[in-house]
Amino acid sequence: MRWGIAATGAIAAGFATGLAETEGAERAAVASRTTERAQAFADEHGFARAHGSYEALAEDPEVDVVYVASPQNRHCDDTLLFLEAGKHVLCEKPFAMNRAEGERMVAAARDRGLFLMEAMWSRFLPAYVTLRELLAEGRIGEVNLVEADFGFALPVDPTHRLFDPALGGGALLDLGVYPVQLARLALGPPDRVGASGHIGSTGVDEAVAAVLHHPGGTLAVVKAAITMRMTCTARLAGTEGSIELPAMMHCPNSLSVVSPFGERDELVRPIEGQGLRYQVDEVHACIADGRLESDVMPQAETLGILETLDAIRHQIG
Amino acid sequence: MRWGIAATGAIAAGFATGLAETEGAERAAVASRTTERAQAFADEHGFARAHGSYEALAEDPEVDVVYVASPQNRHCDDTLLFLEAGKHVLCEKPFAMNRAEGERMVAAARDRGLFLMEAMWSRFLPAYVTLRELLAEGRIGEVNLVEADFGFALPVDPTHRLFDPALGGGALLDLGVYPVQLARLALGPPDRVGASGHIGSTGVDEAVAAVLHHPGGTLAVVKAAITMRMTCTARLAGTEGSIELPAMMHCPNSLSVVSPFGERDELVRPIEGQGLRYQVDEVHACIADGRLESDVMPQAETLGILETLDAIRHQIG
Repeated sequence: MRWGIAATGAIAAGFATGLAETEGAERAAVASRTTERAQAFADEHGFARAHGSYEALAEDPEVDVVYVASPQNRHCDDTLLFLEAGKHVLCEKPFAMNRAEGERMVAAARDRGLFLMEAMWSRFLPAYVTLRELLAEGRIGEVNLVEADFGFALPVDPTHRLFDPALGGGALLDLGVYPVQLARLALGPPDRVGASGHIGSTGVDEAVAAVLHHPGGTLAVVKAAITMRMTCTARLAGTEGSIELPAMMHCPNSLSVVSPFGERDELVRPIEGQGLRYQVDEVHACIADGRLESDVMPQAETLGILETLDAIRHQIG
Repeated sequence: MRWGIAATGAIAAGFATGLAETEGAERAAVASRTTERAQAFADEHGFARAHGSYEALAEDPEVDVVYVASPQNRHCDDTLLFLEAGKHVLCEKPFAMNRAEGERMVAAARDRGLFLMEAMWSRFLPAYVTLRELLAEGRIGEVNLVEADFGFALPVDPTHRLFDPALGGGALLDLGVYPVQLARLALGPPDRVGASGHIGSTGVDEAVAAVLHHPGGTLAVVKAAITMRMTCTARLAGTEGSIELPAMMHCPNSLSVVSPFGERDELVRPIEGQGLRYQVDEVHACIADGRLESDVMPQAETLGILETLDAIRHQIG
C-alpha cells in the first residue's frame, strides 16, 4: 500500500516511524505547505517524494491512501481534498471539529467508494484487543460504569496549539476523545450528557468533565484537562468485577482484571515498536478486502463520538 | 455532657460505642418507638434511661445534647423537636432532605441559642485533620481538581432502606454527601453543576455522578452508587502535586502526598477506636465554650452541601 502523509508535525513523524515498521507499507510521499519542510521530512523518514502542497499530494498518482495529520480544524477540508482525488484516507483524531463535518467526510467517502477511518490507534493496541475480548466474553459481567481521564498540567501558553482556539485547541477534542471513545466502546451511545468545564483566558476548554448516561442506566465519567494533573487511567466496573487500564489509558502496556473480592490479575500486553503502526495493519486489511470502513473503528462510532463531544462542548459553553 | 440518642439502628449503636470511649460523655438516655427496643439498646450500650418515644427523650431534663440518628426523612422534624425542648443537637448526615429543611433547623437552633451540627464525622478523623493542615499550608499548591466517589453494588431490594424513596434512600443522600463535602472542603462552593444519574425500579437514584464547577475554574467530580462498584477513593490535584485518600475515602487510615514527579509520601493516620467518637470531642468543646456551631463543620457548610445535593437531584430528575 502506497502511503502519503499530509503534515509533518510530531504525530506525522510518529506515524512515519510506524509505517517503516509495517510490512507492506510503502512510504510514497509527504506533503507540507513548503517543499523544504516536506523534503526534510521525506529525507528523515525515507519517503520517496516530497510535495509543497496538499493539492500536489492529492494529484500524486502513485499514492493509494493518505494519512491526514493536519490540525483538527483542517481535517474536514483536507480529508475531502484527498477523497475527491480518489485516495483512501486515515484521518487523525479528533476526526473533525463537530459531527456535521464528520458526516460530510463520511458521505464523501461512501459516494466515491473509498476507505475512511478515524486514526483511533488505541483500539488496535494489544491491551485494547484484550479489553474487547474480555468484554465480549463477559469477564466482568455487565459493565455499568466507565471512568476514564486524560489530563496534564501545561503552563498556559497562547502560542501553543492546545491553547489556540483557531486550531481547535482545548482539552476535550485532543484528549477527551480518548476517554469518550473508551466509554462508547464499553457502553455504547449515551442518551444524556451532564458536563461542566473551565474555559481559560485564551478561549479554549482547559478542563472538562462529563457524565454520560446510557439507556439502561449505565454511566461513564470522562475527564480531560491541559491545566490539571489527572491520573490518565481508566476503569470499567461490571457486575462481576472490574478492568483497570493504567496510565496512559490511551496506550497502556497492560490491563488488570479485578475480582469483586479485590483479587487482581494483571495481563501484560506490551506495545511493540511504534504504537501508531497497529492501526496501519487494519487499514491494509480493510482496503485489501474492499471494505470501506473498519469493524473496530466504524464510521458510525466516529460520528457518535463527535456527537458526544458536541454535546459536552454545548454544555460547557 | 449528658447524651441522648434518638434511634437504635446501626449508626446509633456505633455512636453509642463512640460515646463509651469518650471522656466526659455520659450515656444518659436512648429513645425508640417502643420502650422494649429502647431498653434493649440501653442495656447493651450502658445507657441510664430508655424512652418509648422521641417526645419522652425531649422532655428528659437530664439530657443536654441529642444525637439524631433516625432515617433522613425524619431529621428535620426530629431535630426541631429536640431543639424546641432546649437540647443541643448533633444530627446524622445527610442533615436533611433538602436545603429548605436545613435552613429551618439552623434557624431554630439560632433562635434558641443552642448548638447544632451535622454529624460529618469524617472531618474530625486524623487523616482529615492532616488533610486540612496540608491544604492550609499549600502542600500541593492550589487545588484545581477533586475526584471522589463512594459506591458499592447491592442487589436491588425494595425492602432495604437505601432503596426506599419514602425513607430518603438512594445513593446521593447517603453516600454522595461524603464526596460532596470533600469537594467543598477543598474548593469551596460550586457555581455550576452538571450531573446525571440512574433512577432505578424502586424510584431512588441508584447511581449518580456530578461535575461541580467553581469560581476560578476548578472542578470536582463526585460519584455515588448503591448498584455499582466504585473505588471509594478520593484525589485532590493541585498545582504542586496531589493528595490521595485510599478506600474508604470517608474514613481513611492514611493519606498520601504525591509529588508532580510521582514521588509518594504516605502519611499513616489511623483511626483509634470507634471513628464516630472524634466528632463527639468537637461537640463537647463547642458546647463548653458556648459556641453554637463548629468551625470544622459550620452550619453554612452543611447548608451549602444540601444546596449542591439539591442541584444534583434536580438534574437527575
